[in-house]
This record gives sequence, structure tokens and C-alpha cells, in this order.
Amino acid sequence: MKVSILFVALGLTAAAPAKKLETPTDVVASAPASAWKTIPADDLLVMDLAGGGRIVIQLAPAFAPVHVANIKALARGHYWDGATVYRVQDNYVAQWGLNESDKPWPAGVTAKPPAEYTRSLKGLAVRPLGSPDPYAPGAGFVAGWPVAYSPKGNWANLAHCYASVGVGRDLSPDTGTGGELYAVIGHAPRQLDRVIALVGRVVEGIDKLSSLPRGTEALGFYKDKAQYVPIAGIRLASDMPAAERPSYEYMDTASPAFARYLHVRANRHDDFYIRPAGGVDLCNVQVPVRKKAT
Amino acid sequence: MKVSILFVALGLTAAAPAKKLETPTDVVASAPASAWKTIPADDLLVMDLAGGGRIVIQLAPAFAPVHVANIKALARGHYWDGATVYRVQDNYVAQWGLNESDKPWPAGVTAKPPAEYTRSLKGLAVRPLGSPDPYAPGAGFVAGWPVAYSPKGNWANLAHCYASVGVGRDLSPDTGTGGELYAVIGHAPRQLDRVIALVGRVVEGIDKLSSLPRGTEALGFYKDKAQYVPIAGIRLASDMPAAERPSYEYMDTASPAFARYLHVRANRHDDFYIRPAGGVDLCNVQVPVRKKAT
Repeated sequence: MKVSILFVALGLTAAAPAKKLETPTDVVASAPASAWKTIPADDLLVMDLAGGGRIVIQLAPAFAPVHVANIKALARGHYWDGATVYRVQDNYVAQWGLNESDKPWPAGVTAKPPAEYTRSLKGLAVRPLGSPDPYAPGAGFVAGWPVAYSPKGNWANLAHCYASVGVGRDLSPDTGTGGELYAVIGHAPRQLDRVIALVGRVVEGIDKLSSLPRGTEALGFYKDKAQYVPIAGIRLASDMPAAERPSYEYMDTASPAFARYLHVRANRHDDFYIRPAGGVDLCNVQVPVRKKAT
Repeated sequence: MKVSILFVALGLTAAAPAKKLETPTDVVASAPASAWKTIPADDLLVMDLAGGGRIVIQLAPAFAPVHVANIKALARGHYWDGATVYRVQDNYVAQWGLNESDKPWPAGVTAKPPAEYTRSLKGLAVRPLGSPDPYAPGAGFVAGWPVAYSPKGNWANLAHCYASVGVGRDLSPDTGTGGELYAVIGHAPRQLDRVIALVGRVVEGIDKLSSLPRGTEALGFYKDKAQYVPIAGIRLASDMPAAERPSYEYMDTASPAFARYLHVRANRHDDFYIRPAGGVDLCNVQVPVRKKAT
């Protein structure tokens, strides 16, 4: 707008070209290479469905180190041979694993991990969301992750957003070992924050889980084993042949590009929008992640 | 806890039985008949998929009267004969209708409705959410609906939550007529609040939409018409034979039972939970709706 006024003041006769208003997609497309961080291959869990479809999960060792180490040991120890997706509850979660198996844990698995539901806020550089959060004193982003936190309580936790991945567990004091995992396929169930160990998020293929038929038993369990969705394999990308490894990068949430992205998400002003909201929910920001050419 | 202390003080030797902590489901199950309101048959839109599966939508004439009147006229005028679900975008919406048809509007349709994106707050009895909302000065519930509002601005709007139903439109000043509808199948896209006309919510069968295969074209449109999901019929329940009409009731959001439900949703303290959040997001409350025996 200021540009147009300037043109008028200078007496230019040609109309100023309409300034195209940025969409979140525009911000992502124009972000410089320096705004992107590559996800280490050792933090990528690659799950292939037997019927086709790949789901790739970025693990979060900074938030749940023992649970994440377990998941890596489970993958390397072929624990999930024969695993299935056995629970799909609408607007909640899809869950997979061996479902009440007594298969022994592979080497390197801690059978009873600590309750990694929060961690210390110390050492974390948070980009604040800039909008109120109903679930915690603060909300924002740390190294690409959506987090809730309390400066006073000195805690931070990964937030349960769409595509977040967590560890199924029994009633406390059980903390879950990592053999049974779930991904969020509906509106953010933030009531699970600080109650359960989150270990990462799906960065590719969440739609392969969210579009599965819903289970009709209580909690969305499939009624018949014939409905279970077989998993062909779960591997770490770092254990795959280099030529086959998928690779991803996320937008650095400390970058100026992400600051702009966050602002635009909270203030949609492109053609379709009429009233920028002036605020945004933590789980409605969706940190950009994209596949890298390999 | 006080009861236990009392037992100790009285010198009783038997332990007090553990008090079962209420879940949201418990609150719904124990709500008295007076806490429930029947949805009028004239406000129920019944959509049957040709391949099986029923989706029932409660319309909200108090929020978008002209758009809702249009939808009723479209159903009664058989406008949707031959309609399909032609767009399913992951974590966003499923959309149906005739998709860029030039079929004439039936009698009674207002071709260019007003922009029913907000209404006056006056006359609405709001039960406040009690937690902050990132998108509006206030959030709460009115007659069973999740709403955002501004006392200062004297406006209120239905909120875009999971299963909300809205009217597809072109760029403003187009406001959409009602022939193309969408339902939210992912995390609440609240940035669409006050930007588009919401006309209701799915009260049964949202999983029939949310589990559809995702479209692979831009915005989740299906690539080939062969992928379109055919709709057998869209009718008002009030136009169905009485014996075939489905009927539903919702929990009156002004009732004490709902106050309790809201409290428990914001403070989960039953067996699985460790730390009540002390707050809840508007779209994570999910006003209870259930089928009535007919």
C-alpha cells in the first residue's frame, strides 16, 4: 500500500502493479537454502506397508532419548517383523506394532524407560508462537518441533499435533517401551501432552494412515485380525543402502523465513481471505518439511 | 481424599474404596434426559454414498439462515442428483457437489446470498470455554455449537472444527450458494473462520469421508473422474418417511451436565492421565451428539 501511495505522490500515471500477497506456500518456496536443515538419516524411521505406501517418521532424540534409542534398537533387531496397523480410531490415532505380543526385546532395548513426557526447558532456544495456548503457559518452536513449555516450571514437551508419533503404554507406572506406536490422524489431542512419550512425527505418508478404514471395536481396534494392515518392514534410513535412502529437510524454526511463515499463517491475507485472524493455534502452523533430491 | 482422612480419624480399619474418577464418557452416560435436546428433522441433511455409508449433517440456521435455506431448497429440488465427492485433501477437507456445473438452481435458491460469515452476538447465550482462544477474543458454546466471538465487536461465528460443514465459494465477493459443500477432516482450520459460511456439522458418518483416499491433484482434487465417489442421494430427514428418519440429540451446552463435561475435558484426571492440562482447545471439546431410538 505504501508503494502505491508513493507512486501517486510522485505523479506517476501508470497504476502500481497489484502487490501479490504472500501465502504460506509462497514463503516456503522463496526461503533461502540457509533456512533448511537436513534430517539425519539415523533419525528417520521408514515404514513400508505390505500393500504399498511408505510412511517416514522423524525421531526426536532431544525430547525422548531412551524411547528413541529403543525404537532404533527395535528396528535394527527386526522386532517389527510381522507387525500390523491394528487400531484406527477416527479423529484420534492409528496404532501399529505387534499388539500384546510376548516376543522378547532385541538387544539394546530398555524395558522400562523413564517417563520422558517432558524435559528441561534449559538449553532450548524457543521461537514463541505469539498466540495464547490453552494447554501450557507457553507454546512455540524448537529446532523444527512444536513445543509447549513453562519457564517457571522449567519444562518443555513436544505437542500432540496432527502426524505426531507417540509410544503406546499401559496405565502408569508403565511408560511404554516403544514396540507399539501411534500417529495422530485427527484434531490435536493435546490432553495427551505430558502424559505419554512423544518420539517424533510423520514427515511423509501420514495420509496412508489417516485414510485407513476405521476400526469398529472400542478405541478403534479392528474387530477381526483379517482387517489388520500388514507392515512389510520398519527400518532406519541409515540402515538402508545409500542409493535407496529417502532424505528430508525441515525449515529451521530459528530462521527469518520461518518467522515470516509463522506471521503469514497467523495473518492470512492472500486472495481468498477477508479477515486475518491475528493469531494461530500451535498445531495449525505445520513446520514445513520437504523431500530432498538424493 | 477427605473421606479417607475421616475414616482414619474415626479409627476405621478398612480402607476407603477408591473413588472412580470421571471420564468425559462417564459424564455423557450419566447426564439426565433434561440435558439433551432433539435436533429437528428439518435441520438434518442425510447424504447416502452409492457405495454404502451414511453421512448426516445438522444444519445451523441460526448462523447462516440464507445459505441453510438454500441447502434445503437444493435437497428438495433434487439438485444433487449425480453429485460426487470430488476432493479429499489430507488434514483439511472433503468436498462434494456437482463441481463446476452450470445446472440451474431449483426454485427457492438465492443465487447470491449475503456473506453469512459472522452474526450478531446479541441474543446468544454463550457458555464460555474458560480457556484462551488464539483466533478470537472469546470462545465458547451456543445451543450445542462451538463459537468464537467478540463482545466488543458484537460478532459471533461458528468455529471450523473437525466435522464442521461449510460452503465452497470462489474469490470474494462470491459467497457460495450452497451447491458445493465441504466437511473438515483434519486439524481445525480456524483460519477459515469469518472467511467462509459454515452451515453445520456432521453428526454421523464423518469417518466415511475422512477415510476416503486422498486426491493427488492440487488442493486434493481427484485426478480422474473415475475416482469421484458417487452420492446416491441427499435428502432432508423431514422429507423421509417417518419410519426411516434418523433422529439425534445433542447435549445442551447450557446444562449443568455440559458444564461438568467441559470441566472434565479440560482436566482429565482418570486412570490414564497423570497431569490434568487445566485448559482445553475449543475444537477439542466435541459437543456430545447421539442417535435417538426412533
